[in-house]
Amino acid sequence: MDGTMMNFPLTLTHILERCGKLHGKTEIVSRRPDGSIHRYTYADFYHRTHAFAAALQRAGLKRGDRVGTFMWNHYVHLESYFAIPVAGGVIHTLNLRLHPDDIAFIINHAADRWLVVDDVLLPLFDQFKDKVNLERVIVVPFGGSRAAAPYVDYEQFISQAGGDVTLPQLNEHEAAAMCYTSGTTGKPKGVAYSHRALVLHAFALTMADTFAFSQRDVILPVVPMFHANAGGFAHAAAMVGAKQVFPGRQLDAASILALFEREQVTLSAGVPTVLWSILEALERDPTWAQRIPEIRLGCSGAAPPEALIRKLDKFGLHVIHAWGMTETGPVATVNFIKRELDGSDENRVYALRAMQGVPVPFVDIRVRAKDGLAPWDGTTMGELEVRGPWVTACYFNNPDITDRWTNDGWLRTGDVATINEDGYLRLTDRIKDLIRSGGEWISSVDLESALMSHPAVGEAAVIAVAHPKWGERPLAVIVLKEHATATGDELRAHLADKVVRWWLPDAYVFVDSIPRTSVGKMLKSELRERYKDWSWSAESQG
Amino acid sequence: MDGTMMNFPLTLTHILERCGKLHGKTEIVSRRPDGSIHRYTYADFYHRTHAFAAALQRAGLKRGDRVGTFMWNHYVHLESYFAIPVAGGVIHTLNLRLHPDDIAFIINHAADRWLVVDDVLLPLFDQFKDKVNLERVIVVPFGGSRAAAPYVDYEQFISQAGGDVTLPQLNEHEAAAMCYTSGTTGKPKGVAYSHRALVLHAFALTMADTFAFSQRDVILPVVPMFHANAGGFAHAAAMVGAKQVFPGRQLDAASILALFEREQVTLSAGVPTVLWSILEALERDPTWAQRIPEIRLGCSGAAPPEALIRKLDKFGLHVIHAWGMTETGPVATVNFIKRELDGSDENRVYALRAMQGVPVPFVDIRVRAKDGLAPWDGTTMGELEVRGPWVTACYFNNPDITDRWTNDGWLRTGDVATINEDGYLRLTDRIKDLIRSGGEWISSVDLESALMSHPAVGEAAVIAVAHPKWGERPLAVIVLKEHATATGDELRAHLADKVVRWWLPDAYVFVDSIPRTSVGKMLKSELRERYKDWSWSAESQG
Repeated sequence: MDGTMMNFPLTLTHILERCGKLHGKTEIVSRRPDGSIHRYTYADFYHRTHAFAAALQRAGLKRGDRVGTFMWNHYVHLESYFAIPVAGGVIHTLNLRLHPDDIAFIINHAADRWLVVDDVLLPLFDQFKDKVNLERVIVVPFGGSRAAAPYVDYEQFISQAGGDVTLPQLNEHEAAAMCYTSGTTGKPKGVAYSHRALVLHAFALTMADTFAFSQRDVILPVVPMFHANAGGFAHAAAMVGAKQVFPGRQLDAASILALFEREQVTLSAGVPTVLWSILEALERDPTWAQRIPEIRLGCSGAAPPEALIRKLDKFGLHVIHAWGMTETGPVATVNFIKRELDGSDENRVYALRAMQGVPVPFVDIRVRAKDGLAPWDGTTMGELEVRGPWVTACYFNNPDITDRWTNDGWLRTGDVATINEDGYLRLTDRIKDLIRSGGEWISSVDLESALMSHPAVGEAAVIAVAHPKWGERPLAVIVLKEHATATGDELRAHLADKVVRWWLPDAYVFVDSIPRTSVGKMLKSELRERYKDWSWSAESQG
Repeated sequence: MDGTMMNFPLTLTHILERCGKLHGKTEIVSRRPDGSIHRYTYADFYHRTHAFAAALQRAGLKRGDRVGTFMWNHYVHLESYFAIPVAGGVIHTLNLRLHPDDIAFIINHAADRWLVVDDVLLPLFDQFKDKVNLERVIVVPFGGSRAAAPYVDYEQFISQAGGDVTLPQLNEHEAAAMCYTSGTTGKPKGVAYSHRALVLHAFALTMADTFAFSQRDVILPVVPMFHANAGGFAHAAAMVGAKQVFPGRQLDAASILALFEREQVTLSAGVPTVLWSILEALERDPTWAQRIPEIRLGCSGAAPPEALIRKLDKFGLHVIHAWGMTETGPVATVNFIKRELDGSDENRVYALRAMQGVPVPFVDIRVRAKDGLAPWDGTTMGELEVRGPWVTACYFNNPDITDRWTNDGWLRTGDVATINEDGYLRLTDRIKDLIRSGGEWISSVDLESALMSHPAVGEAAVIAVAHPKWGERPLAVIVLKEHATATGDELRAHLADKVVRWWLPDAYVFVDSIPRTSVGKMLKSELRERYKDWSWSAESQG
């Protein structure tokens, strides 16, 4: 027996119509490439987005056609976030920071039909344009002059459509957006988010215990819109009608803080690297703290250390630690302190806040240890598996990759984690970065955190290197801070009371820098390659 | 092209599993019929609910079977809210306050197979048991002794099931709960809520701009669980793992305030009558204010007057005005003050807060005036129409009732409303209560509010009575406060500067009480019947 409810699909169309009609007075603020500020309202956004959707339809967009975007964060990207899907297409956000060959691969694999690109990014586009086959390239003319043939000028494109548009009736399972993972191994792989997934994810972000998106918020995510839907922030902000602020390409701390102050931002987000740079700016000039409001500050992409969370709290910036990946919508877990943990001592609370948090409603998590599902004891490590309505069940047009899912349909994340008795998830490593020594696991991340707490250490990467007796043993790769010094023995002594003896790295290498991916993650694969023939000294500890 | 997302249905099963595993330590507190307090945790709730589901399956529950509940608000009702749907059945909450004949009609129309009933309600059950055909009646033994044949004892029933239960894989469109409207005209009509509708509704309640349900809340709705899913509060509370407090049958202000204090409640809800009684108790003994926390106080069922909202604010009880009906999930609109209205003067803010608020995401509202859709101007009146994923598309097994929906599928609410330029809904009347005078509409509710502001008036109902010249004219039915006096001329003078002249009631009748429905709404149909042959005096104003 079915319910008597209306058949009302969960689509971005409703969010667009709602914010345009109900929140037409709310502002959307963008920094243009030249640093100047563009402002308009949701009412303007609504009309231009409708015009863009009409233009796409008039130009012959077919249901499910992929339209790529190659843009910074700004209002035209927001218009694309909605116009393309509500017209029946799929917005495919392209990562500006990838190698041109990878971008070409991704465009070709996704079979993108058209592309929308910032004029200031045309030099980058030139590096791969001959390797792709795009029917139409629409250029956003920030430079002031109209885009010339063979390109289509965005403003001209949307102004020619004119009049009203009849948006198609969409099924909520249709794809609305697409994003490719920028994994550290293998070819990039695509995920296609359905309208339903994006809507449910937006609901999840608005919950009081996650990010509590409100119409009363001013929201500035320092997260690229080409990266996993910018955490879903734009969809959730539009759903509640919050003021949105887009930083464009100026992502330095001073530019961000200036927007925090001028627009009185209340909710932001960024990776730890961004948060560190904001903290440094605040420490250099503590008067910022009087000029900016209290801000909730989402953090994901990597775990923010406790020290970062503590120091930002003092400036009124309150980190909300979340975890997810392109494959999970992205937000799968969000940290908050449960009521029954009130009154815990401050150290315990900060330790909890540095964990990845608890699963948001309708996301399930579990940890698979060597001999079955791990208990929620905070210590048993294993691979994190996840499922939910905004988790992908496969990669786009990649039927051969099946080993990323369990037989019962959970996504294998490739992350090693524990879950404690209160349900708090703690990621300890990537599976491929674990060191397997004598049948036991050593967490490279835990060793790196311990090494980073040494005053002379700027960066640390710990990798597994083959060992004749133990299988693998840890090697520490260290970047010292400027003018600082430390020896391997000193670092070893520093670690001695922080980790068990058999975890201690057997060797310490000092380098100038650690290779990183386009999104700032350490490229351990390159380090493993570099040190694969390492020859252990006789006293190797195992 | 569909997304690559997992097929993960939105069912109550996920909510049950989540709160049991993730929030096992959170308390659920109930007042038993004898006034004593019962406490247990979500972990206990989870185990007992699983046991109840197992018992239902073992007893032969088939998919879609209706199981009625005839209970006050307490933990067993909560167990029923989840166990029956996750076992594949449909919980059908029965309104204790209806006439026994109506209850029998409803049970028979819904074809309820089994019933769960409080032992203290058996005397009420006895009044209709011979008119219904229930296979099994399960009695909750609060009295201490086990229920005897022919009844089944609830505790025995769930303890016999034993062991683990394999819950069925449900489709999200399957019915989970059912409720009949207690309309003032016609036979009761049933609405069947799908799992999907209840889940999406729960998401909507947890949003920062609605009720912001949080795991950190302590939630005590003074709303019967047999009335429109208790506003969806139990589902939303379980989804976030909030502490829940159930008042049982003791709904007087002193009992409620005692629970507010003892359990440190942070979120509550009730109809205006309940809120008035709480206010009176606070005014009698202002020391309550020091003993209870700040509370968010949902209010629906009727519009809370500005004066009520203002006075409760002073005691730290902050009214959140919401609107909905059994047919709409129930919550369709919730009031909050938009950011751009910050700094409005206090009177304007209170006037806004006394309106029904703005539609929650994924609910659409519109007003149909005499000549088409009304603009959002705050003055054009017409019938409110609504649609959304938790709005019913029909009545259960009532294919002949189609005039409640428009041709394009919106629910016609029977309410007369305006929407202002900021999207705030204001209900002005029920369609059937409007007075149609000389082709124009007069709002009975506005007249009643104006009359209620006279110090001598305790209650006021304004009804339409046929008039030879004007079609209809307003008649005011007044209950004076104890020991107070007022004449029709005095009331007429009081209204003179509050409404336009042609709205002024042509006659004033003084009575001892106004007839009301089981949920406290004025029974204007009875008044119209009583005064249908009213003879207007010569000076009738029209």
